[in-house]
Amino acid sequence: MLVVMKADATREEIDAVTARVTELGLTAVPLPGAERTAIGVRVGGVEVGAGRPLVVAAGPCSVETKEQTTATAIAVRDAGATLLRGGAYKPSTSPYSFRGLGESGLRILVEAARAASLPVVTEVLTPADVELVAHFADCLQIGTRNMQNFSLLDAVGEQRKPVMLKRGMSATIEEFLLSAEYILAKGNPNVILCERGIRTFEKYTRNTFDVSAIPLLKRLSHLPVMADPSHGTGKWYLVAPVALAAVAAGADGLMIEVHPSPDHALKDGFQSLTFENFATLMRTVPAVAAAIGRETLSSQ
Amino acid sequence: MLVVMKADATREEIDAVTARVTELGLTAVPLPGAERTAIGVRVGGVEVGAGRPLVVAAGPCSVETKEQTTATAIAVRDAGATLLRGGAYKPSTSPYSFRGLGESGLRILVEAARAASLPVVTEVLTPADVELVAHFADCLQIGTRNMQNFSLLDAVGEQRKPVMLKRGMSATIEEFLLSAEYILAKGNPNVILCERGIRTFEKYTRNTFDVSAIPLLKRLSHLPVMADPSHGTGKWYLVAPVALAAVAAGADGLMIEVHPSPDHALKDGFQSLTFENFATLMRTVPAVAAAIGRETLSSQ
Amino acid sequence: MLVVMKADATREEIDAVTARVTELGLTAVPLPGAERTAIGVRVGGVEVGAGRPLVVAAGPCSVETKEQTTATAIAVRDAGATLLRGGAYKPSTSPYSFRGLGESGLRILVEAARAASLPVVTEVLTPADVELVAHFADCLQIGTRNMQNFSLLDAVGEQRKPVMLKRGMSATIEEFLLSAEYILAKGNPNVILCERGIRTFEKYTRNTFDVSAIPLLKRLSHLPVMADPSHGTGKWYLVAPVALAAVAAGADGLMIEVHPSPDHALKDGFQSLTFENFATLMRTVPAVAAAIGRETLSSQ
Amino acid sequence: MLVVMKADATREEIDAVTARVTELGLTAVPLPGAERTAIGVRVGGVEVGAGRPLVVAAGPCSVETKEQTTATAIAVRDAGATLLRGGAYKPSTSPYSFRGLGESGLRILVEAARAASLPVVTEVLTPADVELVAHFADCLQIGTRNMQNFSLLDAVGEQRKPVMLKRGMSATIEEFLLSAEYILAKGNPNVILCERGIRTFEKYTRNTFDVSAIPLLKRLSHLPVMADPSHGTGKWYLVAPVALAAVAAGADGLMIEVHPSPDHALKDGFQSLTFENFATLMRTVPAVAAAIGRETLSSQ
Repeated sequence: MLVVMKADATREEIDAVTARVTELGLTAVPLPGAERTAIGVRVGGVEVGAGRPLVVAAGPCSVETKEQTTATAIAVRDAGATLLRGGAYKPSTSPYSFRGLGESGLRILVEAARAASLPVVTEVLTPADVELVAHFADCLQIGTRNMQNFSLLDAVGEQRKPVMLKRGMSATIEEFLLSAEYILAKGNPNVILCERGIRTFEKYTRNTFDVSAIPLLKRLSHLPVMADPSHGTGKWYLVAPVALAAVAAGADGLMIEVHPSPDHALKDGFQSLTFENFATLMRTVPAVAAAIGRETLSSQ
Repeated sequence: MLVVMKADATREEIDAVTARVTELGLTAVPLPGAERTAIGVRVGGVEVGAGRPLVVAAGPCSVETKEQTTATAIAVRDAGATLLRGGAYKPSTSPYSFRGLGESGLRILVEAARAASLPVVTEVLTPADVELVAHFADCLQIGTRNMQNFSLLDAVGEQRKPVMLKRGMSATIEEFLLSAEYILAKGNPNVILCERGIRTFEKYTRNTFDVSAIPLLKRLSHLPVMADPSHGTGKWYLVAPVALAAVAAGADGLMIEVHPSPDHALKDGFQSLTFENFATLMRTVPAVAAAIGRETLSSQ
Repeated sequence: MLVVMKADATREEIDAVTARVTELGLTAVPLPGAERTAIGVRVGGVEVGAGRPLVVAAGPCSVETKEQTTATAIAVRDAGATLLRGGAYKPSTSPYSFRGLGESGLRILVEAARAASLPVVTEVLTPADVELVAHFADCLQIGTRNMQNFSLLDAVGEQRKPVMLKRGMSATIEEFLLSAEYILAKGNPNVILCERGIRTFEKYTRNTFDVSAIPLLKRLSHLPVMADPSHGTGKWYLVAPVALAAVAAGADGLMIEVHPSPDHALKDGFQSLTFENFATLMRTVPAVAAAIGRETLSSQ
Repeated sequence: MLVVMKADATREEIDAVTARVTELGLTAVPLPGAERTAIGVRVGGVEVGAGRPLVVAAGPCSVETKEQTTATAIAVRDAGATLLRGGAYKPSTSPYSFRGLGESGLRILVEAARAASLPVVTEVLTPADVELVAHFADCLQIGTRNMQNFSLLDAVGEQRKPVMLKRGMSATIEEFLLSAEYILAKGNPNVILCERGIRTFEKYTRNTFDVSAIPLLKRLSHLPVMADPSHGTGKWYLVAPVALAAVAAGADGLMIEVHPSPDHALKDGFQSLTFENFATLMRTVPAVAAAIGRETLSSQ
């Protein structure tokens, strides 16, 4: 959420903020919240935030081929996803690992998204690429390793596409919110926070998904909060229960890695769901959301 | 769950195990699981485990007075709790803090439990107290600081009341399961695991509740897994969303701290729910459980 | 150090405290400190604390045989150690691992200590064993898993042998000092703190040795502070550099695991030094201590 | 160290590597190591690495004014420092905090360095600034938040000035070395690793200085390893003991924050040493280094 209005904000005050947002060339979406009045983030045609239906972004960790990406886009849409996620520029711990297809990956991703009629979320790694990625994508993702890459935060703050900011792997909640503030301070109000697990001593899981971050972030700010149980656990068989947990805790959306054949994925196959497992998860998500009084947006 | 039978265990094999359990003076409760065959843990009249309805244990962090404890017992029962939790022997970081009422606290707790017709779960701190606590309680709790107090694990393994073992605040999943193994190895099969958060760098929350531990523990063992969002977060306003998350992730039960007047609690008031907040939570728990295909046991 | 006197404590005040200590059957060792006046802890004939020479405790992780223990005792004494360490009661993560020889191990340990004319430090695991272990040992060790075993802290506080308290593996400095306070509050002033590494995400080392804890503990209290680089690193090849680092940071003593044949040790062989590596380390320790203006106590 | 030669590398092989290094326009400095043969990194006229004298880089966290920077440069040189450190581009958790003077800060820094005849180490935050910073500085620092800013690693790998790479605040040793590999893989062999503390649960210290990382990094690679006890502890009164610990553990150099008036520093004053405290530390550093058989390079 971009603008946090006081609980007793008047209609006139909200209109004034909305007008200013519109002046900036953006679409303001007033969201009447329980305690405060929130204004949502629109990614392509999809609204994300408090008071809006739950959204699910799904897709491959990395764009590998046109066939893989398009098949995945269509499969996740058919299962109910309303956003396509996929990486063309990939951060990699080792310089010798796959680092993504770059611009050609972006083109494949956008083509797949069009085939499935889904907006696209994709990562940008460096200020020099922001303009290019923003040209193709509906939402720019800032990855965990770049949460405190302040030059990059400045750069995505200076353009107008929404930004999905992932929590740094050892970032406190306060640092996370201050990184969001970098983007907001440059004039881009369309920031979505994404909890993706933190680093702890536990060895079974890749990260420890901090489910309490969801209600905490929503209490401390009015920005939309999504959850990434794929990176948050690192194990495909933990993705569904942790995704449902995130929904029950009040997440505004999910980010899920899906691959036609996880065993053959170039990256992070172990945490990717098959089409079938994703479809199974998507049959339970709306029920859990409904249990806490929330609708789920569906492409169906 | 005490005995993990192979997926292809025959009726005869299960009967043999059940007979041996009965010989030991226990009640064996065969639970047909999805992949394996599990046998449940019975606390007082309440069964806990995979395939059983979700159970909720609630009550004060510490037994303070007869009035406080009885009022809480009745309030949580009326809201749907089926077990009473409360501490008579309290571990305390400082030697100068409140350390519990001891045996007189146990007597108050049991009286309150009788008034509300609920079984009792309470902590035991040292081998010398095991016999006394087991005399009063339906289930012995081993706290986070004692997860690797091996003498205590041996002692609770040598008696027959069920044991709720809380995860050490920096214990890995493997260490947690090996501590359970201490109790099992002494011949007490009635062990319930309880995730209660781990220590991380985050300062907003008292601990970081590891929601992924729930499905992971259930995959690696067939022991029942409960969740304690009160200690897992340390903030009353995070208890409900994290409790619901734990249910969605597949927890077999919840442990919730409730106090008539959290501001006046002798211990951990900041993480205790009021009667009203607990009742509100309990109206949503069954819906989330139902969303993943699970019933909720109710005292009502 | 047991009694922290104000910087302007008079001779009379110090004498009064010393007299009271003597009344308790203890030996008070006034240590004139830089800012405050400290009183040391005497283990057998060896004084440990600020202003005293550096001491080194060495020996096997576990007592295995009379030959192994005696050979090690003599070897470490010949290399300059002034205390013998060794475990007869061993905490073990798994119930199926070696848990020590118990009382027969204690007897072997004491016999080896006599052969080498060294005082003995050994671990006690449970209140019921305190009397027995205190009968044999010159100093009782409380291990990392028991730092918050408050019944055990009470029990060692109620007797008079010095206590070496190891930091819990995820304990904050404040919690560590409060656990020491449990022992002090029961009337036993002879507490030595021991930094032995904390649990972090790093996988190369068993623990992360927190070298800053040494000056911090010495600033916040006047208790002696020892360092255990064997558990602090878990790798024999890191023991010597980390031991020297601890000395340079101001540790009052070292705890080092030494084994005649680390490859054949029943426990923790990977972190044990050979006799030769220990002797090599001990040739450098006094030089580093001298560089910061400190003597090293030697058995030689 | 840039090239790790096998222990049995012949003179001819070393010469061939040296020749290739010279072809690249660099100065190769063969360093005969204990087990392997290392080649050092030269920063300005100062060599850093195994087998070379210990070096000390000191200076203000941030360049604030010409007077402050020059006075500090001269004071640290007079106390024995051989490198000047100081920040013109400052990463800051909050967008509203001081972010450094930028290019004008660089000019002040270089002028102060000339006045004191010291080479300069300074941080670069983004690929677009690499050329400018490399024009002024003798060594480019990559800060902890940028350890996995792979575009920046590529950029500093593509130029020829030495790079001081700080460990990420939650980076494993393996990730740290792989980030170094990014720079090496682009053709810049002049990488210095810097341990600066990791994030843990401890609240007294800003970070937990991982002293074991020093011998571990030196075992796993032949790159020079420096230590930053200022960020590693966050408390001025812990800087000296931890600095000495790092030297005893085998660090090839120290990075120390010094300010004429820490109470008035724009950034990180609490961890900065006064001129006097720095001079006191520098009188002990050579003695500790000598105790482990190492000389200390001095500007004197």
